[in-house]
Amino acid sequence: MTRRRPSLAVVGATGAIGGVMLQILSQHADVWGEVRLLDSPHAAGRKLVVRGEECEVLPLGESAFDGVDVALFLVPDEVAAHWGPVAAARGAVVVDDSASFRLDDDVPLVVPEINPHAARIRPRGIIASPNCTTLSLIVAIGALHAEFGLRQLVVSSYQAVSGAGRDGVAALRAQLSLVAGTDLGTSPGDVRRALGEGDSPFAAPVALNVVPWAGTDAGDGWSSEELAIREECRKILGLPDLKVSATCVYVPVVATHSMSVHARFENEVAVERAHEILATAPGVVLFDSPASGDFPTPSDVVGTDPTWVGRVRQSMDDARAIEMFICGDNLRKGAALNVAQIAESVAAEFHRD
Amino acid sequence: MTRRRPSLAVVGATGAIGGVMLQILSQHADVWGEVRLLDSPHAAGRKLVVRGEECEVLPLGESAFDGVDVALFLVPDEVAAHWGPVAAARGAVVVDDSASFRLDDDVPLVVPEINPHAARIRPRGIIASPNCTTLSLIVAIGALHAEFGLRQLVVSSYQAVSGAGRDGVAALRAQLSLVAGTDLGTSPGDVRRALGEGDSPFAAPVALNVVPWAGTDAGDGWSSEELAIREECRKILGLPDLKVSATCVYVPVVATHSMSVHARFENEVAVERAHEILATAPGVVLFDSPASGDFPTPSDVVGTDPTWVGRVRQSMDDARAIEMFICGDNLRKGAALNVAQIAESVAAEFHRD
Repeated sequence: MTRRRPSLAVVGATGAIGGVMLQILSQHADVWGEVRLLDSPHAAGRKLVVRGEECEVLPLGESAFDGVDVALFLVPDEVAAHWGPVAAARGAVVVDDSASFRLDDDVPLVVPEINPHAARIRPRGIIASPNCTTLSLIVAIGALHAEFGLRQLVVSSYQAVSGAGRDGVAALRAQLSLVAGTDLGTSPGDVRRALGEGDSPFAAPVALNVVPWAGTDAGDGWSSEELAIREECRKILGLPDLKVSATCVYVPVVATHSMSVHARFENEVAVERAHEILATAPGVVLFDSPASGDFPTPSDVVGTDPTWVGRVRQSMDDARAIEMFICGDNLRKGAALNVAQIAESVAAEFHRD
Repeated sequence: MTRRRPSLAVVGATGAIGGVMLQILSQHADVWGEVRLLDSPHAAGRKLVVRGEECEVLPLGESAFDGVDVALFLVPDEVAAHWGPVAAARGAVVVDDSASFRLDDDVPLVVPEINPHAARIRPRGIIASPNCTTLSLIVAIGALHAEFGLRQLVVSSYQAVSGAGRDGVAALRAQLSLVAGTDLGTSPGDVRRALGEGDSPFAAPVALNVVPWAGTDAGDGWSSEELAIREECRKILGLPDLKVSATCVYVPVVATHSMSVHARFENEVAVERAHEILATAPGVVLFDSPASGDFPTPSDVVGTDPTWVGRVRQSMDDARAIEMFICGDNLRKGAALNVAQIAESVAAEFHRD
């Protein structure tokens, strides 16, 4: 390989995650040559700012990947499923944020803090980034696993509506504006009526409510998001027998997923040692003095890069288990940031002799 | 005993739970003789309607309990701790909704669907009703325990702000009105500012946020509400060795607590049999067809009496465990209704020969 700055394509540049990606590209150390912005034809022609310069969005097409070294896919599953292999066939290393390739045996699923080397083995030329829910907890869990040996996770999520895309945020906004100024005590009916007035990606009102269903029906009572957490944690950690029980619940929060976690390990866990590990793990902030009001909440965490951990305590009945509350911004580490980190590790390959 | 209608005192008649109690007394079969409404002196003199008749609130005092057979305490802990024993000493059977006596060995902790007979053994003349969080899940859990033998609970709560009293609802209302009409994407700062403008019982903003802390510091990282679920479930079910890990989290919901539950049993659990039990258990509604949108949420459950259960599924790694999502109105079964049910069982003692 030659020492040169690789060229980058951002597919889905005009979307919500694309917007965060352009911010990150402007903020991080610049390792890229040309940066090309791509999107569907109807979004092409728009001009967006990246690295301080205006850049026109080009239409997605086969020739759009000519000369591209690394292509980031921040698009819906079906778009990534079609265009990801096209970009790879044209020679680009694809870093994909969709669900299309995450569980493909020939596609590594990468979290740079945990399994960075997996990104080097990519038979299809594609590297996948995990689901935002998995990403909101895996960095903290991975750090503890390295010390204690993870055996079981029981997780319940408090997922932000932006996890369901811009439609999720729009639905929450519409429902909240309808209940504003009403007597909240009589609001459930108002919220139900609001649902009838606009589209919503949720199966029930989400304002002044919680919705225990995320994704699609995966059989036997499970939602697709719950099984994604299970399969992705197993793959990233290299633990095919890891026990995982997940319950995914949307809450009326705009951005940042929270997770209540019961984690059981092969070895005994001293809370003091768990604290030390979390306080020093890359990409993790320990914020844990609840009697002083120090525990992570979405309003603390939104807009930040790390995974925040608090409420760490030993299970009272089991010296090998701890409870925790973990928060991560689903649009940053949960999506754009992890993709950018993977891409930067690929870029480093170009910089080596 | 003689056949007669016992007299009833409602202490705390002007409070939020008192208001629900007066509704219940007007709706349920009337088993009472005189109904006397009591409250602190500053609330005395108000007139409230119960059983279709206006009734003046009398000031709390020793003589207020003269001639009272059953006294319901719907007041803060310290008020119940002082006046409950006074009422009992005057001959009333006290049914207390506060935390003051729940873990007292000489006070039964009663959920009529589960341990009705415990109410007959009351050395101090006091019967306690559990915490609203415990009550939101115990009826469903108790029905499953009777069949399968409960060994472990891992629960994460999605608690309504009314669990923190009227101040909790007022704080949510104030915070929501401040963010109404704003771009929700920039709202966390607005919510933080709203906190400075009014009192809140929560340690962080609760609008557009979740707050993983309920109650007071119970040591070793646990909150008092989390330990209450543990100790109360053990006492009600008569399982002193039950493993319980609870994480209590407030969400921006007005009324109805939800719980994500991982329950492990002594015996294997077939989901079909669990469904049968929950579909027929007294006080439980099974609402479980998630692919059709049938799962309980607070907006479905608020204002209703039963415990609603959905998302019942077998743990994928453990034939002895199931996952569930449970909702209960914290102001009805979670407070006033359970107290009324206990009181009605005591009234039945007066009706027997």
